[in-house]
Amino acid sequence: MNNTDIVLTLTQARQAYLLMTSLPTAVKNNALICLAKLIDTHHIPLLQANQQDLAEASATGLTGVLLHRLKLDANKLTQLADALREVANLPDPAGAVLSKTLLDDGLVLLKRSVPIGVIGIVFESRPDVIPQILSLILKSGNAVVLKGGQEALHSNRAFMALLPLLAQAVPELPAHWAQLLESREDFRAMLAYPNLLDLVIPRGSNQLVQSIMAATKIPVLGHADGICHFYWHPSAIPQQALALVLDSKIQYPSACNALETLLLDKAVASHVLPLLMEAASNHGLTLKGCPDSRMIAPALLPTTEDDWRTEYGDLTLAIRLVASIDEAIAHINQYGSKHTDGILAQDQAAIAHFCATVDSASVMSNASTRFADGFRYGLGAEVGISTAKTHARGPVGLEGLVIYQYVLTGNGHMVSQYVGPQAKPFKHQLLPTIDV
Amino acid sequence: MNNTDIVLTLTQARQAYLLMTSLPTAVKNNALICLAKLIDTHHIPLLQANQQDLAEASATGLTGVLLHRLKLDANKLTQLADALREVANLPDPAGAVLSKTLLDDGLVLLKRSVPIGVIGIVFESRPDVIPQILSLILKSGNAVVLKGGQEALHSNRAFMALLPLLAQAVPELPAHWAQLLESREDFRAMLAYPNLLDLVIPRGSNQLVQSIMAATKIPVLGHADGICHFYWHPSAIPQQALALVLDSKIQYPSACNALETLLLDKAVASHVLPLLMEAASNHGLTLKGCPDSRMIAPALLPTTEDDWRTEYGDLTLAIRLVASIDEAIAHINQYGSKHTDGILAQDQAAIAHFCATVDSASVMSNASTRFADGFRYGLGAEVGISTAKTHARGPVGLEGLVIYQYVLTGNGHMVSQYVGPQAKPFKHQLLPTIDV
Repeated sequence: MNNTDIVLTLTQARQAYLLMTSLPTAVKNNALICLAKLIDTHHIPLLQANQQDLAEASATGLTGVLLHRLKLDANKLTQLADALREVANLPDPAGAVLSKTLLDDGLVLLKRSVPIGVIGIVFESRPDVIPQILSLILKSGNAVVLKGGQEALHSNRAFMALLPLLAQAVPELPAHWAQLLESREDFRAMLAYPNLLDLVIPRGSNQLVQSIMAATKIPVLGHADGICHFYWHPSAIPQQALALVLDSKIQYPSACNALETLLLDKAVASHVLPLLMEAASNHGLTLKGCPDSRMIAPALLPTTEDDWRTEYGDLTLAIRLVASIDEAIAHINQYGSKHTDGILAQDQAAIAHFCATVDSASVMSNASTRFADGFRYGLGAEVGISTAKTHARGPVGLEGLVIYQYVLTGNGHMVSQYVGPQAKPFKHQLLPTIDV
Repeated sequence: MNNTDIVLTLTQARQAYLLMTSLPTAVKNNALICLAKLIDTHHIPLLQANQQDLAEASATGLTGVLLHRLKLDANKLTQLADALREVANLPDPAGAVLSKTLLDDGLVLLKRSVPIGVIGIVFESRPDVIPQILSLILKSGNAVVLKGGQEALHSNRAFMALLPLLAQAVPELPAHWAQLLESREDFRAMLAYPNLLDLVIPRGSNQLVQSIMAATKIPVLGHADGICHFYWHPSAIPQQALALVLDSKIQYPSACNALETLLLDKAVASHVLPLLMEAASNHGLTLKGCPDSRMIAPALLPTTEDDWRTEYGDLTLAIRLVASIDEAIAHINQYGSKHTDGILAQDQAAIAHFCATVDSASVMSNASTRFADGFRYGLGAEVGISTAKTHARGPVGLEGLVIYQYVLTGNGHMVSQYVGPQAKPFKHQLLPTIDV
């Protein structure tokens, strides 16, 4: 695509967005249910396209987890269709009156939620991301330009091929509300148009996210690193804490919310380290340890400063002994990626202190770090997980896809009446928002 | 300052922020009231410092509006102190439980509002901005590094000199929660540290904002342009509409929310243009017009395409005739800056259509564009006005200075129980947030 095509794509998306904004909730929900039905009735072309992706991926030598992530089956398609129906059941995040203020007699200020606009989303390999993203974009009333992983190209096309059928079933849907780009260069070219693209969401490797962030002035929502910690407090129940460490580490080691570093309180280190060593050998886990921990357990591999900044993404876990909860918190705030960090403890004061001072999007108390996920949090699905401190944080569902707009209604109200020595005072009275 | 000093400043601010986060609301409110009292009791040094600024500014040839904006007097100081007390009366935006979800028995997810972190704010000339910013930062529990206009240096220093006295009165306040930089280069140097600075808010000229945005990867909240429109619908009451046009244009022409372009419906152009011409000559207004408007009123100065993209900031108003409300909306969405735009109409359907499809932070219906302001909206004060489509939009008060954090509390809950063929279902039951 040349620049004219890119601008055309974005302009069409922008026009679609302006129409999506005023689409009634019932129409959006109907579209979600129709799309679910289309997935249900198109297993054959979807799975055939996926087989083609799998065959091509195998031919290029893709194996194991990566090949597995690429695979669709009837069961997965049913889950995806069900997820669309679940999003239909969620409240509409747009159009809500967030507040209503009487500024003065006859001068009423509404603050209402509205879609953000045109959103660019790039993601790697997994083809099941497309229906998830489509569902959230549709429900929130935005428009999207997508770029999927090259390995899943046939599957992605097969999902997008359902959209013309959806348009027939739901004629109120504007054209071009969801468009698929097929080359990375086209997606990158869009990043140069901050006036046409409102938000970029990259889902994928650290390198992908970093390179997107470096390439654009458009707000980027996502996370590069997922360096997640547990702090094992002396009051933790050892068997429970051990099980949570293992679940957080081995349940899906390449996930961004998997555990990378365990901060173990010195007070219990000599008791806990042997438990960890035994569990590690049972589960094929590689343990690395700081010098203090290796005094107690010399079999631990040595760590360097780099380990505290590394997202292993595999069955490696780094252990550091800490003298106190505050040392643990300081470590997390220094080396962590503000993604997901947790405490293993029974002491309620310690838990409260930890949760109040750890500067991360998700803070876990005696629960696996792997729960940090839009579906598990009840958001229906997620467009990504954000480590940003503005707009949306942690797993991002529908609410992260809206912003608000102020609407002020007067009857000839002029500012000159409210300034100077004879200024009228404002009333600033909050009104109920229910009957709007 | 060298880079070590910059990092030290930001690190100290970061440590302060982590302490500000858990400061009780009562302590923050007490600090606001103490600071108001300090302003009340320090009129003499504050006004002396301001006199020094005024003298130096006059010596360099500053006159008129710019000199006026620099000036403090006893009345203004009293207003500033009162504004601090008003912010003390507003609800605490941080620490609120936004939602509480039972994911499963014993597994509870809290979403709670938290401060954003360390915020860098740069602004031009007006010294009264400092107490406003301090009040919002303090109440929201953030830390701030400020850079004020060089012309107001003595006034700014005098305000900042109150902070050590505030620290004595309120010992719970952490050191370094608000720091003042005195050189533009130092502020720019901070922009290179996205890990230490969470948000940048530039207040000032288009050039200042653009150059900040171009210089950093840190989220920037603000607006470069303020190209505000009115659409004059055939159903408008001419005298009311004319008064609103004048108020929006002449009440403070250099403000970002002042009117720049009037989109006049062709149906009433021949009646309205003479009214506008007469008002213009009474108020020293320069009117420019599109070719169609000049057919009716040849005395209008001609416009070029550039006029639709120009923020005059003075007593110039551009007029364009439009054939319909949709042509007006299309013009606004194409040339506007998503800041503040309004409709002058009595037809309720036209008003509703306009408000639903104009993609701006503030949409005015029969009210002056000049109302788009944090104080007038009842936000207490504003840190700036944002034309962004993410995080905070329009006048930004306390709510724009917080984000949320998820806190998940379990009792050994592992993700492995919730995946695979034997997966436990989630409950995802919304709980009341009242008794937390």
